[in-house]
Amino acid sequence: MKEIDVRRRVLEENESAASELRRRFKEAGTLVLNLISSPGSGKTSLLESTVVALRERFVLAALEGDIATERDADRLRQLGIPARQILTGGACHLDARQVRRELEDAAFQAPDILFIENVGNLVCPTSYDLGEDFKVVLLSVTEGEDKPFKYPSIFSRAAVTVITKSDLLPYVDFDLEAVRAQVLALNSRADFLVTSVKSGEGVPDWLALLQRRLGGKRI
Amino acid sequence: MKEIDVRRRVLEENESAASELRRRFKEAGTLVLNLISSPGSGKTSLLESTVVALRERFVLAALEGDIATERDADRLRQLGIPARQILTGGACHLDARQVRRELEDAAFQAPDILFIENVGNLVCPTSYDLGEDFKVVLLSVTEGEDKPFKYPSIFSRAAVTVITKSDLLPYVDFDLEAVRAQVLALNSRADFLVTSVKSGEGVPDWLALLQRRLGGKRI
Repeated sequence: MKEIDVRRRVLEENESAASELRRRFKEAGTLVLNLISSPGSGKTSLLESTVVALRERFVLAALEGDIATERDADRLRQLGIPARQILTGGACHLDARQVRRELEDAAFQAPDILFIENVGNLVCPTSYDLGEDFKVVLLSVTEGEDKPFKYPSIFSRAAVTVITKSDLLPYVDFDLEAVRAQVLALNSRADFLVTSVKSGEGVPDWLALLQRRLGGKRI
Repeated sequence: MKEIDVRRRVLEENESAASELRRRFKEAGTLVLNLISSPGSGKTSLLESTVVALRERFVLAALEGDIATERDADRLRQLGIPARQILTGGACHLDARQVRRELEDAAFQAPDILFIENVGNLVCPTSYDLGEDFKVVLLSVTEGEDKPFKYPSIFSRAAVTVITKSDLLPYVDFDLEAVRAQVLALNSRADFLVTSVKSGEGVPDWLALLQRRLGGKRI
């Protein structure tokens, strides 16, 4: 079997597991986000702020993808929500079967929101559907304003682009409007948010977006 | 053929092409660096500073790996050195055959230093030998101090760790000494440099390191 056939088979198997996950999440009434970014763009920090803001009103859970270490899951467990680290060994993305395995634990079967934080990587996670409602791509202002056009797949596919670390804007060259234009050129329907968990900028907009996606659901 | 066998075969083919490259580079007296980091850590910016400092004294060339766009090669060509963009389509790393193909162009056959800037990614490029003398991993101070332990493969294998954007240290939480300790725990012989192309900090140390690796060679 050729390399390309093996890759196609792997993706097909993933699609099938992802479809099953999507059906299960829908039945359970769970909103599922797949968060994708470079290493260090602030995925876990955004989740920490989100958990603190929403944990009284919603049942939350998180799956944390990483090559190594339990650090991210530890950070979220300390905030009182169920969080599980999925260590990929060397793989640069999560896949749907890894997510499905975690659903054997009741804590992850029917939360209101399940956050899936993918491995820090702007490339590989793009092709692997995890049964999520939508993908969120994060880009910090320190990473440079050329990134959407350099990584077009993820910026085309993510329903939401979250710019992070806006508190550092005064110290870096990052043309927000140019980045917004790039993102909208790739995906005209994308939501585009500018945030900083340090200053708090944009965090209410992010929470409002989640609330809209959840519909009227409140506990 | 199973997925794991295909992956093994791909890596074996890469090793073979990389060995050939290493032999050719050695015969040509070319020092070859393979630069690896997350997207936006400042690989191209460090190369720009390096080229400006060394272009009068050494013959330089650069290969720029990216998923999409010619931007990085354009930035280096503007500084007057031969630079070629290798677009990987969707692949998250360069491989040795892609590098070998570029050597058909005489400009890349025997420079004093060939800089290979890999695709922005801390995972995939680690496994693909490009025939380089050594790997350089870059980590910007905005990416967070947990990264060496989270991406141990690349920090173990890189002969040099370059911390970038040190001018932003006052505005972020980044414990330099903790990061240095992590890197040295993974690779006790690693060179560890703290740099900023904006303030100029550490750039002379980086240039001195390249000069040492080049031996006494001067034009």
